Amino acid sequence: MNLAEAGRLLADECARYTALGWMRGTSGNLSVRLSSSPLRLAVTASGLDKGELTPSDVVEVDASGTPVHPGPPAPSAEAGLHGRIAAVSGAGAVVHVHVLAPVLAAERWPSGVELRDLEMLKGFGRAAHDDLVTIPVVPNSQDMEVLGDAFEASYRADTPALIVARHGLYVWGSDLRQARHRTECLEWLMRFIIES
Amino acid sequence: MNLAEAGRLLADECARYTALGWMRGTSGNLSVRLSSSPLRLAVTASGLDKGELTPSDVVEVDASGTPVHPGPPAPSAEAGLHGRIAAVSGAGAVVHVHVLAPVLAAERWPSGVELRDLEMLKGFGRAAHDDLVTIPVVPNSQDMEVLGDAFEASYRADTPALIVARHGLYVWGSDLRQARHRTECLEWLMRFIIES
Amino acid sequence: MNLAEAGRLLADECARYTALGWMRGTSGNLSVRLSSSPLRLAVTASGLDKGELTPSDVVEVDASGTPVHPGPPAPSAEAGLHGRIAAVSGAGAVVHVHVLAPVLAAERWPSGVELRDLEMLKGFGRAAHDDLVTIPVVPNSQDMEVLGDAFEASYRADTPALIVARHGLYVWGSDLRQARHRTECLEWLMRFIIES
Amino acid sequence: MNLAEAGRLLADECARYTALGWMRGTSGNLSVRLSSSPLRLAVTASGLDKGELTPSDVVEVDASGTPVHPGPPAPSAEAGLHGRIAAVSGAGAVVHVHVLAPVLAAERWPSGVELRDLEMLKGFGRAAHDDLVTIPVVPNSQDMEVLGDAFEASYRADTPALIVARHGLYVWGSDLRQARHRTECLEWLMRFIIES
Repeated sequence: MNLAEAGRLLADECARYTALGWMRGTSGNLSVRLSSSPLRLAVTASGLDKGELTPSDVVEVDASGTPVHPGPPAPSAEAGLHGRIAAVSGAGAVVHVHVLAPVLAAERWPSGVELRDLEMLKGFGRAAHDDLVTIPVVPNSQDMEVLGDAFEASYRADTPALIVARHGLYVWGSDLRQARHRTECLEWLMRFIIES
Repeated sequence: MNLAEAGRLLADECARYTALGWMRGTSGNLSVRLSSSPLRLAVTASGLDKGELTPSDVVEVDASGTPVHPGPPAPSAEAGLHGRIAAVSGAGAVVHVHVLAPVLAAERWPSGVELRDLEMLKGFGRAAHDDLVTIPVVPNSQDMEVLGDAFEASYRADTPALIVARHGLYVWGSDLRQARHRTECLEWLMRFIIES
Repeated sequence: MNLAEAGRLLADECARYTALGWMRGTSGNLSVRLSSSPLRLAVTASGLDKGELTPSDVVEVDASGTPVHPGPPAPSAEAGLHGRIAAVSGAGAVVHVHVLAPVLAAERWPSGVELRDLEMLKGFGRAAHDDLVTIPVVPNSQDMEVLGDAFEASYRADTPALIVARHGLYVWGSDLRQARHRTECLEWLMRFIIES
Repeated sequence: MNLAEAGRLLADECARYTALGWMRGTSGNLSVRLSSSPLRLAVTASGLDKGELTPSDVVEVDASGTPVHPGPPAPSAEAGLHGRIAAVSGAGAVVHVHVLAPVLAAERWPSGVELRDLEMLKGFGRAAHDDLVTIPVVPNSQDMEVLGDAFEASYRADTPALIVARHGLYVWGSDLRQARHRTECLEWLMRFIIES
């Protein structure tokens, strides 16, 4: 995938999440893998209204989140965590949205949010029965190294999500569509457990 | 009705439910009766984004949910339950959506959700007064035989709905529009009783 | 206003309320005054999907809700209450929607829902301070005479709304727009008091 | 910025807030700075449906909210508070919406709503860590002098928002977009604390 194509996909996805109310203000950011050797991601630019993103509002970054080409626009401040997640998990796309339900769930279960015996877990990539799923919760930080280390310490290959406490949700998948489907299912699951 | 016409109707209905947030991820599936002797249904294909469904993303199945013609696309894994519901109830259309309120209600009332003396029951096909309506709740299963047997054991001809615990809602009617109206009314009723 | 013009306005308004989720299934109905001597209303037809209403899906009725001209479509079953409200209050338009918050409020305060010292009361036609507003609650009935008598017994000229318990909300105003603005403000107020 | 340009921007912004459900009835009003010496604002006209606002439905007012040119349309009754906020804070745009969550939060914390250690505070213009943010709450009034004095008494240069109890939310920023982003982030924060 080239950067122009990635830009179109990322802008379309951002418009969807904005319509769901999951990218309020300029919050949230998305990335998609451009190449693997070396690892290159296209990540949404920093500080923009995600409902108005255009295909050129994306930046090519390396595994550390550093722009490959100098100059504006700047990548999201969280590009480093996107890079870390992509490198560790092998994901083709990473979604970060400030959706409320997972943040509320993390307040109640700060050492990890447990889910089990729920059909929607299938849409998240797990089994609907007899399969305890724990969504890791890590403390918020402005330091992407710190966040990345916390992610890696909590990482399990079968659990493509991470809640950053008092901040938001990360979900990843093979491509933007799978990552979106998993995000939608996980949001449903989080809403279910906080309203149950 | 032929398969092409069914495909257009099913795609339109899926877009409506998706906009309501009731088909998150790739969840949910719809079917409509094509013929009665033998029983044939058009059911939505498996694993697709229901907001992007096209008229060709449907499959003709028999009463057991088995495709009549080989080859892709595959029908929804729940096609067998659609067939069973259509055969037992005589319904012309079956709706299955992962809408939150009925699943929350089933957590609270796992042996059946009782409704009575509510105007919205008319839109569900029952009386607004002095008519106790019990929406059956059955345990979730991945085996459509098990789910179908549980459906049939709980079936009453005057109650066109079933909640699958920790999963979602089935509603049926003479056609897709009636099934949708009943689904919308039942969702309202479930939201009412869990917020009362 | 003639019936054709009324039909266009009613269809437009129904589409708005449907988009808000306040006319689920085929629930709710709207009317607008066509003439005063004798009293004639245009009321939405019975049993239709309000999100798909066309300008011809309306019926001219008299003060009792009886169609002035024979034949289909049939008026809403609640046309009689629209006629009674229009006659008693002098309203130019009556809105009836199955919006959840007022029905929940009526469960909690079955003898009337009290509101006071809230800015949104201005949009409902009352004062924002030192003005106790009581929204009447009447029991549900399928008999429009019974409902109409209950409405009239509870009627106060300064309070253009009525909650029918376990059913829905009536609001009226000089025209459809004023009735809609009052409905929107009252829904906000009801949501406020049940969440406070 | 001239009045015509301001009118286009204000109508666009009103349509957004209306779609979010934050300007129900004819509630809410927006303003944008036209000039600084002397201070002149374009403010939305009084009593209109904000989802139908046109670019000409705006009024040029001075720092006291008084129209600079006579005649219709009349400015929002709250134009005086917009002027006061713009003068004191230096803001380029002021948003006033009747969004529910801040009003609910003010009921619970009537002497000010405290926020701390939440990522969304960055989108509001503050730090995500170790920075106690108190959103002032002032009693409602119909007298813009009284409201303006209460605003000024509670004003801190680093906190671009004010909750008017039992009424709604004011947020300001350098332009309409920044004010909107801050409003969206603050609504998320208020929803978070009342649901936590």
